[in-house]
Amino acid sequence: MPPETPDMNAALASLMAELHFDSDGLVPAIAQQHDTGEVLMVAWMNQAAIWETLETGWVCYWSRSRGKLWRKGESSGQSQELRELLIDCDGDTLLLKVAQPGVACHTGRRSCFFRAVRDGQLRTIAEVVVDPDELYGKDC
Amino acid sequence: MPPETPDMNAALASLMAELHFDSDGLVPAIAQQHDTGEVLMVAWMNQAAIWETLETGWVCYWSRSRGKLWRKGESSGQSQELRELLIDCDGDTLLLKVAQPGVACHTGRRSCFFRAVRDGQLRTIAEVVVDPDELYGKDC
Repeated sequence: MPPETPDMNAALASLMAELHFDSDGLVPAIAQQHDTGEVLMVAWMNQAAIWETLETGWVCYWSRSRGKLWRKGESSGQSQELRELLIDCDGDTLLLKVAQPGVACHTGRRSCFFRAVRDGQLRTIAEVVVDPDELYGKDC
Repeated sequence: MPPETPDMNAALASLMAELHFDSDGLVPAIAQQHDTGEVLMVAWMNQAAIWETLETGWVCYWSRSRGKLWRKGESSGQSQELRELLIDCDGDTLLLKVAQPGVACHTGRRSCFFRAVRDGQLRTIAEVVVDPDELYGKDC
């Protein structure tokens, strides 16, 4: 799975020099809608997922539960187009600025962060906008 | 360290019932500026940090490197006022909507996510706005 282009080689090499993967070879990645700033979800990436995401421009995670690459939207249709990939100061978290049509969450909500502490209770603060049955219940 | 108020008891109980801490008793927490949507940083919280944050309204993390509670801003002055605490669908990540005056990052930048892949390279895309020496170099 070598990068195919000089740009990809350079981008991966400079990223990998700064990234600190955990003992499973993973880093967490935050997906944020590029224009509204909504934090949509958090998932995991390994080197192959990062490479595929940069190469294709479509976000690919590593599914810990399934133990394989997870091309976001492959079952739900709710793909994420990458607009920018950032890393934090200590190189252990990625921030993906994405264009996410539809919903990011397997519950059919726009964001996975749909529960908030309000008035001393954990409350659901966002509505389901797509019936989860339509998403095949496999994403998120 | 029992919660002091019925509201805090209820909020903590409903949160703890849904949160999944890792084997070190920690969950990652994303800090996002509540009005602009900027993702500022990612750090870790344990139960005590969550309790203190909800009780005081000021964000307190758990410092893995120092092995103790980390009241954000205690050394840098760059405190974060909590506006809302959210959890994701699988209960393993927190999203803190905060009011962050000044800078979140120990490098003196607004956000810890100041490096992006552009044109095949990892580039610094945000300037230092506060001299790190003024922040005592202990935060982030």
